[in-house]
Amino acid sequence: MPDQSFNHTLISTIQNLGVEKTISKGDFLLREGEVERNVYYISSGAVRVFLLSEHEELTIRFGYEGSIINSLASFIKGTPSEFYIEAIRKTTLRIIDKAAFKELVNSSPENLQQYADLMELLVTQQIDREIDLLTVSPSQRLKRVLDRSPNLFQQVPLKYIASYLRMTPETLSRVRNS
Amino acid sequence: MPDQSFNHTLISTIQNLGVEKTISKGDFLLREGEVERNVYYISSGAVRVFLLSEHEELTIRFGYEGSIINSLASFIKGTPSEFYIEAIRKTTLRIIDKAAFKELVNSSPENLQQYADLMELLVTQQIDREIDLLTVSPSQRLKRVLDRSPNLFQQVPLKYIASYLRMTPETLSRVRNS
Repeated sequence: MPDQSFNHTLISTIQNLGVEKTISKGDFLLREGEVERNVYYISSGAVRVFLLSEHEELTIRFGYEGSIINSLASFIKGTPSEFYIEAIRKTTLRIIDKAAFKELVNSSPENLQQYADLMELLVTQQIDREIDLLTVSPSQRLKRVLDRSPNLFQQVPLKYIASYLRMTPETLSRVRNS
Repeated sequence: MPDQSFNHTLISTIQNLGVEKTISKGDFLLREGEVERNVYYISSGAVRVFLLSEHEELTIRFGYEGSIINSLASFIKGTPSEFYIEAIRKTTLRIIDKAAFKELVNSSPENLQQYADLMELLVTQQIDREIDLLTVSPSQRLKRVLDRSPNLFQQVPLKYIASYLRMTPETLSRVRNS
């Protein structure tokens, strides 16, 4: 996740579950080592998921208004999260716990099918991300991401996009303007 | 995929579907630009999935005996594959076409649940792979992969493991022996 192209009723139902919370820029939804027990639906604002690797913060995912996000591997496997989730703006979200989410998914064959569809979408997004990371050219990396997320620069500060693209902010500014 | 930790009945059923075929080392199951219409169950042998990027072959996945594999994003979305799939040894496999696979998945709620479980597993494997690619230290990259696939060197020639790990064969030999 992010998941802007997934408009199934599963997502619209999720919006009405759980509890609403508003957090400030810089607040954390989850820290490395904690087990992810929730799915977050972003009503407004934006969050980023990042990995702390050798004292460097590596941003790997964004969650925007209208999308769902969490630390997915930790959520699925029940293992400690390798990632942090931090609000990059003031963000209002719905917090849906795992039991409520599972109950929704298992409440009908249609919902289970939509959950399988969602997992398929996430796999294909991860494969896109894998190809991104293997793409040497900075301009090609930027092009691939903008093809998928044309409004990225309207949603997310440049420094986090640069981290996501594995380039310096200076390189990103240069390739963006060339 | 590869998928060695997934022992659901969906996989054992797949073994009995489709047509059997034996291919030689160097033969291709799929080439870049073709649409993936099959799932492959590896009865014996091994295959690799690779991306051709700026004239360099980047190996991104292996399929071993007892696992299923294909060009997944192409299979799901019906878009041209960005990857090649090549036998790295003489390989016997079952080829299951999309219609037969979908029929199996949709034939019972249990099978659909197992398919959703499989997609969950693949998402978590992709997230592991993403962290691999973001890990700077070659020895840490090797350790991460061996923790998941302890028998990798028994299954796959060193040059392909080196490509998968984004290091030269010389570096891989060095970090493996240190």
